[in-house]
Amino acid sequence: MKAWLSKLNADLSFSPASAAELARSELSGAFPDLSFHVTTDPDLGEGYRIRREEDGSFTVKGGETGVLYGAYEMIRRAFSGGSLPDSYSSSPKYALRMINCWDNADGTVERGYSGQSLFFENGKLTYDPLRMRELGRLMASVGLNVLCINNVNVHFPAQLLLEDWLPEAAALADLFRPFGVRLMFSVDFSQPMRHGIPTADPLDPEVRNWWKKTAERVYREIPDLAGFLVKADSEGRPGPFTYGRDHSEGANMLADAVRPFGGKIVWRCFVYNCRQDWRDIGTDRPKAAWEHYAFLDGKFADNVILQIKHGPFDFQVREPLSPLLLGMKKTNMAMELQLAQEYTGHQIDLYTMIPMWKELFEELPSDRIMSLAAVSNLGRDDNYTGHPLAAVNLFTYGLLAWNPDTDAAEAVSEWIRMTYGFAAADEQALLSLLLSSRRTYEKYTAPLGIGWMVTPHDHYGPNPSGYEYDLWGTYHKANRDAVGIDRTENGTGYLLQYPAALQEKYRNPETCPDLYLLFYHRLPYSFRMKDGRTLIQRIYDDHFEGYEETEKMAETIRSLPFPDPDKEVILSRMDRQLYNAKEWCDIINTFFRRLSGADDEHGRKIWD
Amino acid sequence: MKAWLSKLNADLSFSPASAAELARSELSGAFPDLSFHVTTDPDLGEGYRIRREEDGSFTVKGGETGVLYGAYEMIRRAFSGGSLPDSYSSSPKYALRMINCWDNADGTVERGYSGQSLFFENGKLTYDPLRMRELGRLMASVGLNVLCINNVNVHFPAQLLLEDWLPEAAALADLFRPFGVRLMFSVDFSQPMRHGIPTADPLDPEVRNWWKKTAERVYREIPDLAGFLVKADSEGRPGPFTYGRDHSEGANMLADAVRPFGGKIVWRCFVYNCRQDWRDIGTDRPKAAWEHYAFLDGKFADNVILQIKHGPFDFQVREPLSPLLLGMKKTNMAMELQLAQEYTGHQIDLYTMIPMWKELFEELPSDRIMSLAAVSNLGRDDNYTGHPLAAVNLFTYGLLAWNPDTDAAEAVSEWIRMTYGFAAADEQALLSLLLSSRRTYEKYTAPLGIGWMVTPHDHYGPNPSGYEYDLWGTYHKANRDAVGIDRTENGTGYLLQYPAALQEKYRNPETCPDLYLLFYHRLPYSFRMKDGRTLIQRIYDDHFEGYEETEKMAETIRSLPFPDPDKEVILSRMDRQLYNAKEWCDIINTFFRRLSGADDEHGRKIWD
Repeated sequence: MKAWLSKLNADLSFSPASAAELARSELSGAFPDLSFHVTTDPDLGEGYRIRREEDGSFTVKGGETGVLYGAYEMIRRAFSGGSLPDSYSSSPKYALRMINCWDNADGTVERGYSGQSLFFENGKLTYDPLRMRELGRLMASVGLNVLCINNVNVHFPAQLLLEDWLPEAAALADLFRPFGVRLMFSVDFSQPMRHGIPTADPLDPEVRNWWKKTAERVYREIPDLAGFLVKADSEGRPGPFTYGRDHSEGANMLADAVRPFGGKIVWRCFVYNCRQDWRDIGTDRPKAAWEHYAFLDGKFADNVILQIKHGPFDFQVREPLSPLLLGMKKTNMAMELQLAQEYTGHQIDLYTMIPMWKELFEELPSDRIMSLAAVSNLGRDDNYTGHPLAAVNLFTYGLLAWNPDTDAAEAVSEWIRMTYGFAAADEQALLSLLLSSRRTYEKYTAPLGIGWMVTPHDHYGPNPSGYEYDLWGTYHKANRDAVGIDRTENGTGYLLQYPAALQEKYRNPETCPDLYLLFYHRLPYSFRMKDGRTLIQRIYDDHFEGYEETEKMAETIRSLPFPDPDKEVILSRMDRQLYNAKEWCDIINTFFRRLSGADDEHGRKIWD
Repeated sequence: MKAWLSKLNADLSFSPASAAELARSELSGAFPDLSFHVTTDPDLGEGYRIRREEDGSFTVKGGETGVLYGAYEMIRRAFSGGSLPDSYSSSPKYALRMINCWDNADGTVERGYSGQSLFFENGKLTYDPLRMRELGRLMASVGLNVLCINNVNVHFPAQLLLEDWLPEAAALADLFRPFGVRLMFSVDFSQPMRHGIPTADPLDPEVRNWWKKTAERVYREIPDLAGFLVKADSEGRPGPFTYGRDHSEGANMLADAVRPFGGKIVWRCFVYNCRQDWRDIGTDRPKAAWEHYAFLDGKFADNVILQIKHGPFDFQVREPLSPLLLGMKKTNMAMELQLAQEYTGHQIDLYTMIPMWKELFEELPSDRIMSLAAVSNLGRDDNYTGHPLAAVNLFTYGLLAWNPDTDAAEAVSEWIRMTYGFAAADEQALLSLLLSSRRTYEKYTAPLGIGWMVTPHDHYGPNPSGYEYDLWGTYHKANRDAVGIDRTENGTGYLLQYPAALQEKYRNPETCPDLYLLFYHRLPYSFRMKDGRTLIQRIYDDHFEGYEETEKMAETIRSLPFPDPDKEVILSRMDRQLYNAKEWCDIINTFFRRLSGADDEHGRKIWD
């Protein structure tokens, strides 16, 4: 077994008939000297209760899948060096705890850094059943319960999941079911047109009927399918706009089709003008999601969930909370995170995400959303996540989706203990390295919330003007005097999409938190930061610090007793991160020095 | 028939047995009312004599292929509206007048903008014999006599040209022979290693023997093969450096192999460090060719020809003459031009090259070189050159390779007359448009010799910092005060590679010709040009003018009576050029305004 369950020796060669059977098998494998009573009570749903009996045995009582989560709670506690509880109960905060795989039918993974797809190869749905059970176990062990296996950009022939491939897809669903994992499919909004219907207009009776019949057929084969995931009218995908319909009309039509079967429509809100002209300053991309959705609040069916990226751009290292997550009070919402390190180091650079996620919840009351989704970092690599230490993101995401009050340090510690079982000093060293890795990455990459100074398309490595004259709406407009975009009411007005308290927090550059400064404000290089440094000096300092921290990180990494084969992967990727951090530091500092003319106050080398 | 021979109705469905037979057929097809005596005299080589006899018939006497060139001289004269001569003789200045195709065995063409390869498809040598004869006729009609059919970057399986594909290659050579066109092959320096030899060391007896036997086998099948073209130790290609040998040892080894058969080794001098770090200011890429070759002058065998790009970089819109072309006095040299519009508009933007070539010959005495080569702009598109007006470059290249004293305007006029036969005013309008097209392109793209402000890799469209932090040695280092590289003795010293007179011409920024200013000098934006303008104002002015000229060009183009199907292609590409010119103008001006802070003196719009 792989990742944080490497110590679990329980048999996984069989197909368990139910979650309860699996729970019994896992517990007896993990604790051969203990005895367990695993009983199900449908009323408990995904929740569970654990009790130590007087005879030393344990009772684990839970809903159909709840017993499984109870079992893994015990396993995680024991394998992370804790003691088993006398009494403990828990149930998840969010009903849907989703993984979105961006896997294509040809076997590639969009923004995948862990090898080829686990589910597809050469235009076919094809998989290794043992790896599927391993994956189900990893997901269940941290409470994740929905797996969307295909890319939201539905390229042909992935549409066949609802057609010719349905029997194989149903077999896959059968495989995952005992792990409490339900499948979801990304669907192509124009799919009826593959079947002779001349339109995909959501109000067209023939279209509605096609989706209704399709849902019937799909749910006959996979009765517990979680639903459909839809990327519509975004980056070239088809959607209701083509027919003069709005997104509630599009989503609700699909919602009607899956409602009889308890299905959900998860509708992504990643809609913006991806053909913006760089000369067009009237358009500000972060405003787009709000502009497309806020006015529809209350119009979505009760089984529609709007899936909203955590920030208004696209998974940059630093973005404010999407205002849409605070604005839609009468709509079911999921917050979308990204485990795949698209802009955050490609699973070469270390980047532990939970500190960032916790920051989001500081502004987002956890009750405002009803579910969490995360873009997968999984692939066919032997270790599943490309970089062994990237598994911490999948692990902690699971814990957070179960309970958003999860403490970041505790979750990461638990992962380290389960995965490596280091001595205390080493554990502490790795813990602080992982917890600080995002700040370090942030320091050596784009400064103070500006984002996007990345190599276009590939999204690894620096290119400070790479998106500056492009069509994507992601500009910093740095010139010899100033940098950043004014998003207050004096500028693009984006800030006005927030509640008053948040407007207040960010409005004034003198009081705006430093790390969001250039996201909200355009400021001269001579601007005095709260600590007295100039903006330009702060940019230089951050970049030098980011690289220095990476050097220290490399020392720590080299000193830790990672086992093989992790060790080799970790060390070689650490060398690549060092190279990358140096490139970022040198190029961004040179870029700003060429513009500003300012020397570093501490006389460090900035290239001409 | 296509391109400038569209009016020639002579039969091309047969395979002529000889150039003389072809000459007779072409003449009687072109001039059905005249009679001709075509006689060969081997002493005349590629030369010919034309005489009008008293009975009104014509005698065309020439060497084996000379008669053909005589015939096409008559055809070109007549089809461009001239009268046939009473007496005329000519012979070519350069023995080898070469086309280098960068065609890959998979059918793609590296830097090809005219469709797929004419010679290869799906990893096989395969072609349409009629199109081969058409191509042979086009080449012969302007005196071109060598065709290298495969890419200098020899990717597998193109090596098979010397192996399994030899019989088909020989059949292709047979097809071209009556057109006076001899084939050439690009070879892989490491090719012996495909045959169990553990090295490609040019001094290794087994390697030398392998090439000797290979040459014997190849020349047995294709006795008039022009020779081998070699790109060695460049951009990842194998070469003698691997074995601690120099390029004369590499080239001479191959020269020994082909010498018995009269073959040549054409050895490209495009060698530089393509992994230069942008922080490394001790290396200046334009110096590389000189540094790699000048010290070897006199060491190359007499059947080796060094093929040297016309400029020290790589086919930018404006480069000085390569100093190596002036420096190697005891070495056979060919100057390499590029018909493919890699950096010069992808055969979308109009770019007539002969004015640029004529400028090169102002500094290069035509006797210093013994041959010309040009990277092909040919492909499988119906019109051969993608853009119908790009054919003017192939046509005028042929005339220039025959006679470097060819007048640019006369050559372009001749091409217009042959191709379109416009009325005088239209002809004049198209002529001045084509002759000015390069200056226009230069104005709206990179300023004053700086080059390289192009989208990396693709090389179409603007990206002012695209190569700035990269590995290719092509930096402008623009900052808030200044732009350009000092290549005088105070800077990188590149200028010292030239003879004294040229050093003098370019050394002083006050007297250096404007168009080369930023190639040789690093100057502040406030620098006063000879006409009193500041450098920054001149950059703005050029870019605005370039776009305005493109707008006028579009008006002219739209007014001209191009026939179908040319018209549609020309008009649609003109629209794309207009878009491209606008992007260049706006982005480059914005880039420099962000840096310099200078406003346009005439108040024209420069975006923030």
